[in-house]
Amino acid sequence: MSAVKIFGHQNPDTDTITSAIVAADIESRLGNDAKSFRLGEIGAETKYALEYFGAQAPELLEKLEDGEQVILVDHNEFQQSAENIGNAHILKVLDHHRIANFQTESPLYYRAEPVGCTATILNKVYKENSLEITKEMAGLMISAIISDTLLFKSPTTTEEDIDAAAELKEIAGVDLESYGIEMLKAGASTHDKSAEELITGDAKSFDMGVKTTRIAQINVVDVDEVFERRAEIEDAINKQIDTEGYDLFVLVVTDILKSESKVLSLGKESGAVEKAFDVSLDDNTAVLEGVVSRKKQVVPNITKALS
Amino acid sequence: MSAVKIFGHQNPDTDTITSAIVAADIESRLGNDAKSFRLGEIGAETKYALEYFGAQAPELLEKLEDGEQVILVDHNEFQQSAENIGNAHILKVLDHHRIANFQTESPLYYRAEPVGCTATILNKVYKENSLEITKEMAGLMISAIISDTLLFKSPTTTEEDIDAAAELKEIAGVDLESYGIEMLKAGASTHDKSAEELITGDAKSFDMGVKTTRIAQINVVDVDEVFERRAEIEDAINKQIDTEGYDLFVLVVTDILKSESKVLSLGKESGAVEKAFDVSLDDNTAVLEGVVSRKKQVVPNITKALS
Repeated sequence: MSAVKIFGHQNPDTDTITSAIVAADIESRLGNDAKSFRLGEIGAETKYALEYFGAQAPELLEKLEDGEQVILVDHNEFQQSAENIGNAHILKVLDHHRIANFQTESPLYYRAEPVGCTATILNKVYKENSLEITKEMAGLMISAIISDTLLFKSPTTTEEDIDAAAELKEIAGVDLESYGIEMLKAGASTHDKSAEELITGDAKSFDMGVKTTRIAQINVVDVDEVFERRAEIEDAINKQIDTEGYDLFVLVVTDILKSESKVLSLGKESGAVEKAFDVSLDDNTAVLEGVVSRKKQVVPNITKALS
Repeated sequence: MSAVKIFGHQNPDTDTITSAIVAADIESRLGNDAKSFRLGEIGAETKYALEYFGAQAPELLEKLEDGEQVILVDHNEFQQSAENIGNAHILKVLDHHRIANFQTESPLYYRAEPVGCTATILNKVYKENSLEITKEMAGLMISAIISDTLLFKSPTTTEEDIDAAAELKEIAGVDLESYGIEMLKAGASTHDKSAEELITGDAKSFDMGVKTTRIAQINVVDVDEVFERRAEIEDAINKQIDTEGYDLFVLVVTDILKSESKVLSLGKESGAVEKAFDVSLDDNTAVLEGVVSRKKQVVPNITKALS
């Protein structure tokens, strides 16, 4: 039997990559043969975290065979997962998202909690199994929590995330604020990215009733840096709408210092954003004050507006 | 805010009823306002267990309003749940089945483990939260474990179920074997039931690809007691196939002492049972040696045969 493959979602972010590494550490320590993988390229923020704590990036998952044993972290929706996931044997899921477009033939271990970050759950799993947490794993979990909660500013942040980060920083030996801002900044530059990269880097598809919605998010420290390139970005989005058949494509450009987002809404359902957030689109854009979380704010509101 | 409603699946069995009661006890002890409900009539086996341990049966759930807060135990598939479950706000799921036809708009607490019984997971939850277990709750959890594992004979039985029952019997003060056989026998008589009751008492629907399959199970100590009434039972099944549009209806009559089942397979896909279990149907019936578990043996095999 080959090692159980552990991976997060497509367009991997810091929580998805580090949670795959950390979950593989937990499985190994429990005596199970497991290996972490990634479904795509690693971003600058995640690279910063991996290098800072001396961790190796997981290998790219090339192909998933029918019946292969897998553990999913930080996602469950099949359209966000590996190709052929529907034919794999899913042993476990460790996640903090809504559940949708997910099914198995057999009973499994599924652990989801409505917390800000998968790493917060993994920290509990270490403790429940009385496993010591290394400095490297603590650092990776902290990085995931900072990334997913935008340094505790996102409304997805829970007391449990804050407590987990406070525990883990002692083991990792870092200052949350200064390490966190450096890590977030490392991922916030858009100059070195093509329009295509910007709209696919952290993008997820959602089936919302009969509509298919694509929501891409970019975290920045300067929103204008993105919107100065609007023509080029809009072309890239419209190309994806044509080829993938999205009914709605929302680009969410989040200012991580101001804790607000400017959105660009395209596609034949672009008006859904007005209903979803009670705003008027101006040339297909709107500023959404206080909106920083795709999961907790953008997806539920658009889902309701489309249903 | 009204109390969170906790309930198991339609056609409630002992695990579903007792897990709703036990989960409500846990929530209350954690300071949350919660109340157990049932989605149908309580069977003789469950009645025996409730009376033995002096527990009250949950109220029948009459109606679920849009947006009501609920906790599901012992199931997740919407077609096995309350009407209007798709519009409820599901806070938690505690279950031990495959996941399918389940989705939420928001993140939630979901805990599934591939163990034989929901009660085995609830026993862990008590311990993780350092809550003392009363004699009544221990007795209900033991009853659920015995019922779902057919006194540890079902292949769904795990070490964890056996360990949980061993712990709980000390608190409940019963002998597992003698209490278990009396409880199972209390639910195994078919004389007092109409054909309609026999095929609906413990029946679940499953979407299997494009086919809809209904699988009803009866636990007995004498298989012939059921098949002597075959004509009447077959009429009742065919009526349901007509009105509900099932592609396949499998009645699984399980001999709890011999640990085998005789099935009656009807509907336009009745042949699927031959492929599923590598048997030949004789007049639409077959004896399946060693098959006692719908979840672990019947559903996966028929799902594969139909896909």
